[in-house]
Amino acid sequence: MKHQPPPPPLPLSQPPSMGATVAGGVASVISTMNGNSSSGIEAVKCRPPIYPKPKTPSFDKDRDYIGFATLPEQVHRKSVKRGFEFTLMVVGESGLGKSTLINSLFLGDLYKNRQMPNVEERIEKTTKVEKKTMDIEERGVRLRLTVVDTPGFGDAINCEDSWRVCTQYIDEQFRQYFTDESGLNRRNIQDNRVHCCLYFVPPWGHSLRQMDLDLIRRLHRKVNIVLVIGKADCLNKQEVRKLKERILQDLEDNHIQLYQFPECDSDEDDDFKQQDRELKASIPFAVVGSNTILEVAGKKVRGRQYPWGVVNVEDPEHSDFIKLRTFLISTHMQDLKDTTQDVHYENFRAQCISQISQHALRERGKLKRDSISSTNGFDAAISETDRLLLQKDEEIRRMQDMLTQMQEKLKQTHLMEMKKNDSVIDV
Amino acid sequence: MKHQPPPPPLPLSQPPSMGATVAGGVASVISTMNGNSSSGIEAVKCRPPIYPKPKTPSFDKDRDYIGFATLPEQVHRKSVKRGFEFTLMVVGESGLGKSTLINSLFLGDLYKNRQMPNVEERIEKTTKVEKKTMDIEERGVRLRLTVVDTPGFGDAINCEDSWRVCTQYIDEQFRQYFTDESGLNRRNIQDNRVHCCLYFVPPWGHSLRQMDLDLIRRLHRKVNIVLVIGKADCLNKQEVRKLKERILQDLEDNHIQLYQFPECDSDEDDDFKQQDRELKASIPFAVVGSNTILEVAGKKVRGRQYPWGVVNVEDPEHSDFIKLRTFLISTHMQDLKDTTQDVHYENFRAQCISQISQHALRERGKLKRDSISSTNGFDAAISETDRLLLQKDEEIRRMQDMLTQMQEKLKQTHLMEMKKNDSVIDV
Repeated sequence: MKHQPPPPPLPLSQPPSMGATVAGGVASVISTMNGNSSSGIEAVKCRPPIYPKPKTPSFDKDRDYIGFATLPEQVHRKSVKRGFEFTLMVVGESGLGKSTLINSLFLGDLYKNRQMPNVEERIEKTTKVEKKTMDIEERGVRLRLTVVDTPGFGDAINCEDSWRVCTQYIDEQFRQYFTDESGLNRRNIQDNRVHCCLYFVPPWGHSLRQMDLDLIRRLHRKVNIVLVIGKADCLNKQEVRKLKERILQDLEDNHIQLYQFPECDSDEDDDFKQQDRELKASIPFAVVGSNTILEVAGKKVRGRQYPWGVVNVEDPEHSDFIKLRTFLISTHMQDLKDTTQDVHYENFRAQCISQISQHALRERGKLKRDSISSTNGFDAAISETDRLLLQKDEEIRRMQDMLTQMQEKLKQTHLMEMKKNDSVIDV
Repeated sequence: MKHQPPPPPLPLSQPPSMGATVAGGVASVISTMNGNSSSGIEAVKCRPPIYPKPKTPSFDKDRDYIGFATLPEQVHRKSVKRGFEFTLMVVGESGLGKSTLINSLFLGDLYKNRQMPNVEERIEKTTKVEKKTMDIEERGVRLRLTVVDTPGFGDAINCEDSWRVCTQYIDEQFRQYFTDESGLNRRNIQDNRVHCCLYFVPPWGHSLRQMDLDLIRRLHRKVNIVLVIGKADCLNKQEVRKLKERILQDLEDNHIQLYQFPECDSDEDDDFKQQDRELKASIPFAVVGSNTILEVAGKKVRGRQYPWGVVNVEDPEHSDFIKLRTFLISTHMQDLKDTTQDVHYENFRAQCISQISQHALRERGKLKRDSISSTNGFDAAISETDRLLLQKDEEIRRMQDMLTQMQEKLKQTHLMEMKKNDSVIDV
């Protein structure tokens, strides 16, 4: 008997025939309904993420089996029980469809109560971070998604502060994690580190602007940057291709390294390699978002209605939206987290440790000098222990908060349960 | 379309009919060949590890799918690529079949070149740790298995050193990990921490001996101890039952807590719960090992040939070998690792940190005393802050326990609720 690897869950929104339900290019709804569409290629490109099968060596004899091949399943089970956390930062000037795209990606309503600032407010306001968290569940898998938005970016006249707000936010999360990880209560650490930064480039420029380059240069060693060309439905295919080429050239010329796709193992199967190549080749992703559901050929699609046709967000011929979603969520989300942990956070941590030890050395030097000249080093020692005590007080306060939150949650759950029981009885 | 969870890989050595191929009790090979065996019950008990299916909520609409339900699969894949490490410590006096059992468990030849020490050597030699590592692969899953053996244990006249050797080894690995984890190159840390200690109890005693209790008491807060009654084929069923009862009573009387099976979630399916109950009920496992392959009823089995019959190591009616192997390798290996990390290592780490800060305080105090030659009040101040710091550490530890408890409670409530919802839908 052979062990079958976990089958790849197919994204329900992407049955293989999906690409054909809406016509590519400027074809109208009517022509689509008549089946007048170029199906084949899109259908293939539009396929769900592929997980190649792990190797399944055959065993000659029954007794060659020990049993540890279940280890990945043990890990799988545990991860489901624990749940996942992911933080996405969205950077780019107003009007590039950031919020719409996020809502399209996560089918959420994160920005439903948003009020558009008027021009005066926009000119006044500085770049300010806005953080939204939602707990979502899909097929028994729980995800705590945090979206960090920088809504005023580019609106204020002084753009130089923009990068400071972003880097400060990223560093703060790293610092918090560093404190938590160095503390004694490590089992309940919340990971608020930014795992990915979607950087929106406007479609109307000829390439990256100096402002973009400045910001990206300041971020690329701190966070996984993924470039996205927003509102790409104002560019035709050729224009998209050209813009992508220029952007990649700019990045190369400026020695900027965005998030690197991990190398595809040579033993992966061909479909997976092909999908990987396609994803890589699409960078930077040219996307169109929409929260409007249109009915096209009897199917409901997220789209944008123009007098000359319907842009179907999920049609790979129309935009890279599905590729971005596949990459960001279905295939590389864990790698983005791992890269954050192994590369970006470790860099930050190394800097921290180096600063701390330099500080300690200076402190010791001071004390020694003091003790030799028998002056007052007492203050320094007290302030050091003071700092330690304050740190611990801070940790205790944090834990108290957590306890209160959990108590509240427990109470809520209890109440909900009681209520539910009531309603069940009512029925 | 519903997503199927990864199917549980069935241990090839355990087809459902296996239990029936060799007769239980004193039945001879011939009688077995005539099919004269009590099949049914064994076949059920002998089944492979069961993984209940994760919940697969159904989606009403195609577009309700985001894609992050693949996260556990992403983790699964990464774990396979990375490979696994596991360290097993084997403790017990000579002659209890430790090496044979390890070879039976891992189908290895770890001890093929072993030379038996003669009596004089045995009396002379102290308990010495012997470490063997093998890289094994099964169905594409790689495991670096380390077995830490304490071969002379109990042979030397001075038994008091025995526990010291074991605890020292465990602490050394923890210390190494602590150093590595505090360093700058954390991506390639080798985890040599002892994840499980198989403690062999002789079958010929009436319960645990003072020596056993002493050793277990010294180890149980440092490592996951799993008790095993060695060479259990010299005990009949009633004797095994009695010995197990006495051992459990002894442990309770001495407030010793061995490795605790994690609570089975209330939403697991019934087969899994049943298997879990059976594993728990079998502790301490009474085992028989053998590296001799006998042919019984045309099938090859690991067994021991006696004039009164064949002991089939893998027959659950004959010994708990399969239960031990299922538990240790197929179902709880990852939990043993996680418990080592979250409980035992964290305890060690907390002690380390507390020692370090105390040491730092004393050092500073020394410097300070030199600097303020005038007052004697400084020592008092240092010891006072010392006390405060320790107090706070204690408080943090206590809160940590509370948090863990509440989390557990919350999880249980959540699961119960989910289950209730299910049953409501079923109705």
